[in-house]
Amino acid sequence: MRTQVCETFGIEFPLFAFSHCRDVVAAVTNAGGLGVLGAVAYTPDRLEEELRWIDDHVGGRPYGVDVLVPSKIDESAERAGRGEGGLDTMLAAVPQEHWAFLFQLFEKYNVPLPDFEKAKKANAGSGTARGAGTQVTQQGASELIDVSLAHPIGLIASALGTPPALMVEKAKAAGIPVAALVGTSEHARRQVAAGVDLIVAQGGEAGGHTGEISTMVLVPEVVDTVAPVPVLAAGGIATGRQMAASMALGASGVWCGSVWLTTEEAETPPHVKAKMLAATSRDTIRSRSRTGKPARQLKSAWTEEWEGEGSPGALGMPLQMIVAEGAMRQINKVAESGNEGARELANYFVGQCVGQMNTVKPARQVVYDMIEEFADAIERLNAMSA
Amino acid sequence: MRTQVCETFGIEFPLFAFSHCRDVVAAVTNAGGLGVLGAVAYTPDRLEEELRWIDDHVGGRPYGVDVLVPSKIDESAERAGRGEGGLDTMLAAVPQEHWAFLFQLFEKYNVPLPDFEKAKKANAGSGTARGAGTQVTQQGASELIDVSLAHPIGLIASALGTPPALMVEKAKAAGIPVAALVGTSEHARRQVAAGVDLIVAQGGEAGGHTGEISTMVLVPEVVDTVAPVPVLAAGGIATGRQMAASMALGASGVWCGSVWLTTEEAETPPHVKAKMLAATSRDTIRSRSRTGKPARQLKSAWTEEWEGEGSPGALGMPLQMIVAEGAMRQINKVAESGNEGARELANYFVGQCVGQMNTVKPARQVVYDMIEEFADAIERLNAMSA
Repeated sequence: MRTQVCETFGIEFPLFAFSHCRDVVAAVTNAGGLGVLGAVAYTPDRLEEELRWIDDHVGGRPYGVDVLVPSKIDESAERAGRGEGGLDTMLAAVPQEHWAFLFQLFEKYNVPLPDFEKAKKANAGSGTARGAGTQVTQQGASELIDVSLAHPIGLIASALGTPPALMVEKAKAAGIPVAALVGTSEHARRQVAAGVDLIVAQGGEAGGHTGEISTMVLVPEVVDTVAPVPVLAAGGIATGRQMAASMALGASGVWCGSVWLTTEEAETPPHVKAKMLAATSRDTIRSRSRTGKPARQLKSAWTEEWEGEGSPGALGMPLQMIVAEGAMRQINKVAESGNEGARELANYFVGQCVGQMNTVKPARQVVYDMIEEFADAIERLNAMSA
Repeated sequence: MRTQVCETFGIEFPLFAFSHCRDVVAAVTNAGGLGVLGAVAYTPDRLEEELRWIDDHVGGRPYGVDVLVPSKIDESAERAGRGEGGLDTMLAAVPQEHWAFLFQLFEKYNVPLPDFEKAKKANAGSGTARGAGTQVTQQGASELIDVSLAHPIGLIASALGTPPALMVEKAKAAGIPVAALVGTSEHARRQVAAGVDLIVAQGGEAGGHTGEISTMVLVPEVVDTVAPVPVLAAGGIATGRQMAASMALGASGVWCGSVWLTTEEAETPPHVKAKMLAATSRDTIRSRSRTGKPARQLKSAWTEEWEGEGSPGALGMPLQMIVAEGAMRQINKVAESGNEGARELANYFVGQCVGQMNTVKPARQVVYDMIEEFADAIERLNAMSA
């Protein structure tokens, strides 16, 4: 395909694939799109390892890295992230009420409690496993940016909020284009002013952190607001018809996240993958219960309980992540060994297009099927307007 | 354009325009689309008058009528609508708490109280003005259906829920295609089983009664579910790019409602029109505060108060309509004479595409602009995929 974005990024199809799974990233890049690794869950060392693996598997084709740099986070957590109060300060900022609600939830669903003290610490960023607590502070993100820019990446993206000046400066110095996700045209304007080269306009039907304006409405608005800066459409895009629709709206390409979660390569836990394959487009909810910011995810007992009566309500980011992510690790671990309650609680971030994700395919095949359906859609449009 | 829908309905463009304003209906029909008059607010006599006017202004070109026939409504209201308990039964079903909240709202915003006893009665369907209370019962709708089918209409539509067997039978006997709005593919399947000929798949970004699945996700799902029954896309469609996107998704045409509200012809009160012209796509909310069912509308002091703390919460349909519609008539009347509080409260049903409605144009021009932009979008897609 001949688009500005294809030329700029040296790709065949303007199809960007966001995934936390290196295999998906490499498969999409090798199929002619551009895979983008979601790095927020990694420590700098682990990210280094993942990027080396990708370098070894894409033969010099372009791929990207996505870090999550929130513009606003809970101040006490930010201080802790900067080392002013240390880990204990961040943990202390979580009210007892929230731990109590979590413990009661585990009891209600017959899920054995993990070693919560250990889990809480790992979770807040002790450096061993996923440091959700500190990775989303600016310092945590900065380390991931440095690791990323030391690799031959073709794109660095900020998934949440305006990228900090530091990120833009470092990327520009390295000659790497910066992308950012936005949910409103006001945000898009701000991102471009901050030096962003590629805007991802993400509608409210998307999985993960998302706003409320739909892709159909948001994309043309953002395109008109930031022209001539290129815009990718995101949210609700899992097929070639949706890709064609996005480009009819004025997008220069698409950014897909959910569709990879049920591919052969995906690291999605089997019980969650099964839920996604069975889910309809009605089975998602925009909830703050996992990260502290509204994020679309599968409805499950977890979202029902946190959104229901008796819930203390979600904390802000990243404190809610500290509460939720360690719990979710235990829930997934126990669910895999067959625990029914854990299976009811388990969920993951996914968009409304989960209703269309009904078969397990290799990521490469998803790309080829999208491109084929895209071409068919254009042909059908031509026949109608002839 | 050559599409199945254009042939079936004898129109030039597969562009359906829902409006409560007969001038818009006639203008769109005369411009090559198909205008559909929203009849719910009319008494049978008034509807007869409107349809006669349209007949006199479209020179035999096709237009349609949309009635609102909810499949589930409050039972006591239904009994009252059938005449079992009479008007007083319906009024008695509204809790005092809701009238009290409404009175307090008028006081807070310095809006003089109307003659509420009179307003309540008119509102519940005394036969003088808008009989919102009874028109949405099955009997009320049945009378509107009879009036409609006595005119040379090209389409009869049901805006909410599966049309009752009576409506389908009467329309089939008259040789008139039946359309129905759906927000999920399950509903679409049921509608087709009930004999509906044309499905309008309406995404959650739409104005008025709406579900939560976005147009981008819903349309291909519904198309695949009901094929070969034709599907119109609705929700978030106000421009030719959005029309092209809808048809890339597999729709056979589009159904637009919001975009006509700021046309020259529209009967939208001037203070509400001004709000719409100034609004961004973030300025709508899906709220039960006007009809008792979730309906997207402009955010205003009205929605803030009903959705906020201290609100008794909205009643079901049609009881909330009895509370809200008389109040809104008074609010609009007083707002027109400059009352600030009334202007804060005033709102109307509109979709997220209100952000793109920034200039007042004749309805005819909206059609021509959409078709021109549609053609441009197809050309752009062709250039990219060449």
